[in-house]
Parts: sequence; structure tokens; C-alpha cells
Amino acid sequence: MTNPTAAMLVIGDEILSGRTRDANMHYLASELTKQGIDLCEVRVVGDAPDVIVAAVRALASTYDSVFTSGGIGPTHDDITADCMAAAFERAIDVRADARALLQAHYDATGREMNAARLRMARIPEGAVLIDNPVSVAPGFTIENVHVMAGVPSVFQAMVASVLPTLTGGAPLLSQTLRLMVGEGDIAGPLGQLAQDFDDLSMGSYPFQQDGVYGANIVIRGRDGARVDAAITRLAELFA
Amino acid sequence: MTNPTAAMLVIGDEILSGRTRDANMHYLASELTKQGIDLCEVRVVGDAPDVIVAAVRALASTYDSVFTSGGIGPTHDDITADCMAAAFERAIDVRADARALLQAHYDATGREMNAARLRMARIPEGAVLIDNPVSVAPGFTIENVHVMAGVPSVFQAMVASVLPTLTGGAPLLSQTLRLMVGEGDIAGPLGQLAQDFDDLSMGSYPFQQDGVYGANIVIRGRDGARVDAAITRLAELFA
Repeated sequence: MTNPTAAMLVIGDEILSGRTRDANMHYLASELTKQGIDLCEVRVVGDAPDVIVAAVRALASTYDSVFTSGGIGPTHDDITADCMAAAFERAIDVRADARALLQAHYDATGREMNAARLRMARIPEGAVLIDNPVSVAPGFTIENVHVMAGVPSVFQAMVASVLPTLTGGAPLLSQTLRLMVGEGDIAGPLGQLAQDFDDLSMGSYPFQQDGVYGANIVIRGRDGARVDAAITRLAELFA
Repeated sequence: MTNPTAAMLVIGDEILSGRTRDANMHYLASELTKQGIDLCEVRVVGDAPDVIVAAVRALASTYDSVFTSGGIGPTHDDITADCMAAAFERAIDVRADARALLQAHYDATGREMNAARLRMARIPEGAVLIDNPVSVAPGFTIENVHVMAGVPSVFQAMVASVLPTLTGGAPLLSQTLRLMVGEGDIAGPLGQLAQDFDDLSMGSYPFQQDGVYGANIVIRGRDGARVDAAITRLAELFA
């Protein structure tokens, strides 16, 4: 049985201009791997409606689920909710339950609801809210797309809200062997091993340390005994 | 005049599994911005030939230039050069000049050329080599695609080799104003300002500090005097 597949769509000019370094991709990748969901593709796009709509349609029709980050705050450049409504041809408006969450939060913290903050209660028709324990303004799930905030602490809290609702697969197990041997001398035996264990995936990640070449060899698979057998064989080859 | 556009294709299972945190996207984004080239899209894909070929074709036909990272080493999972040849329907084989570079390097460092290392001299027909002052094995440019290593020190050296050969545009200038005001109170005035200065792009990046909400407002544009006028107006609004 194959694992469920997923993609991520990172939305924001600030990532593409180099102003901000994305932190969410790496976090989501790790969480999905633990859950046995295969992250197959990530796209990063700017704050351009046509590009966002095209990207989410392409990803949502290719993968079992899609996770977006960014663009759901109160300012004029926060256009993700409208783009999701457009992508799935849904109406979008302020929704009573989302508005009530925000109103209660502003009442409790002595701030005022205004037009900008009310934008964060705009939710496409038929979407399900995603809980935001950090700063209240909710994300939402529309069809197979989970729409979340870009601020890392909020993104992570929303991922924690969404993941238990998804069907996972067999988590990917991995073992790493660190070899102080140049990758060019590892490649031949490793290629043969990869053929002998074609149910596993093997990667080689080179490094230099004090002028000496080495590589971390990572062997991944669903069956722990097979991963173990392969890494043992590899270790013997370079003993 | 609009700036040249660019995209990036990050290739590697290790990024999507969360094992490795990509460092090259942020670096490339910053370098391109300095050069006046607009990075418009990034895709991250795994070590799957069909997906790599489809992605590079889509990006190369949409943007002025494409930068790839990863998958050009000596091991069996290094399939980027073959995928680029397939994407552009070119033959691929060991090339004499690339082989000579590697041979000289191995002779000098007392290592042996073998079949695996020779793979790094496989270059698609008609490509131009990209200099690698760090570890010698070259990248290459094929049509409008610059194919580079994933190891950050090598990636950065290759970017430094390629960038001077590209036509840049007007670098994007930016100024940032840090406001200790909640984003919901900034959004209204900022939206109006964005309408008044519609040649500039304005982004709001919220944070919390000691329980107080604030936001960094970043105003970007090609014309420094306009950026300056807009940030001055914004500062007056919140003085």
C-alpha cells in the first residue's frame, strides 16, 4: 500500500525577495514524514492572485492533500482566502463563527474590531475552520487544502490542529551511516546495494571535515528489518 | 521596463523528507534581488525523473532563467544531468573538458578516477560549464537553465560564477518601519497608502514581543525617492 501524498504552497513576496527565510517547509516536511504522509512537492509563489490560484489548483488535483502558508492576516497583501475561494469557485464572506472567535479575543484583550481585523473572518463557503490557539484568527480547510498562517508559531499550531484529522501511512524509517570516504569511492558499492535493496531509498550527502571528504549515507524504507539489513551490509563494505 | 524573471528548482528527496533543511533558496533569493532579477517561483521536487523533467520544462518556458540545485554528484541518486538532457531532448555523455578538470583534481589530490566520479563529467550536448572553485566538478548551463550543486558552499560558488553573465534589472530597494502597533490597526492606513503609491509594494510582517503586538512594514520599489516618500508618510501616520 502506498502512503498518502501531500504538497505545500508557500505564499509571500517576502520569501522570494530574500527578506524572510521560510521556516515552515522544513517543519511540515518533518511532521508529515513522522505521520507517514509523503510530501512530494513544494511551491513558493508571490502575492499574485493568478499565480496562487493556478498553483493551488494544480497541486490540489495532483496530491491527496495540500498545505498552504501565508497571506491570511488583516492587511491588503493578505489575499490567500480570496484566492482559495476563486480556485474552488466558492463565495467568500465574513462568517459568524469566525467573527465571534475574533470578537471574543479582542474584547478580552481590550482591542477594537475594525474593518481590517474583520477581514480575518472572511472564509470561503463550505470551509471548515482550523483552530489557532496562538493568535485566534483561524485557518480553514477547503476541499483537500489546508490554509494556514505564515508566522511560524501559528503555522505550527495549525499543523498540530490538522494532522490528527488526516489518514497517515507507514512512517518512513531511516538509518544513517557516516563514512569518512569520498563520495566517488562510495558511489559504486552504494549503487549496487541500491539495486539489491530496491524496496529502499538510499541517499548520499557529502561533506568536508578538516579537509577530508566524507558522506552521510541515509537508507530509508517502511520495513525496519530491511533498512537494518541494508545498513549492516553497507557498514561491512566499508569496515 | 520590467526586470528579468527567474525561478528556482530544488531537487532532492532529503529536503522533502525533512532530513535536510534547504539553505540555497534564501541565498539565491537575496543574490537575485541585489542584481535586479525577480525570483518569481520556487519548486521543490524529489529524485523522480518524470517530475523533474516536467518541472524544469514548465519553469524554463515561463521565466527568463531557471536555477536548479542538487543531484549532480557521483552517486546513483544523482540524476539531474540526465533529466536536463531529457527535458531539452539533448544527448548526454562524458565530455572531454569536464573529464580533464576532474582528472587534474584527482591527480593533484591523490585520488583515483573511477566510473562513479566519471559520472560527474556527463554533460548534456551544447551545455556551457559552470566553474566550481570549491570541489571542481562543474555545473552547467543548458538553454536558460543553470544546473548547480546542492551543497551550499558549492551552490554559492556556482551562483557567483553565473550571476555576472546575466542581465540584471533595477535592484529592488526597500525600507522597513518597525511599528509597535497591532497589525489590525495598521491595515487600514497601510491599505490606503498602498493605493496612493501603487508603483510600490508594501508588506506587513507581524510579530509579538513581550506580549505586545507589532509589525515590520516593508516598502519596496525601484525608485528610491518614492520608497522614501512612502515610508515617511507611513511614519507620520503612526507618530
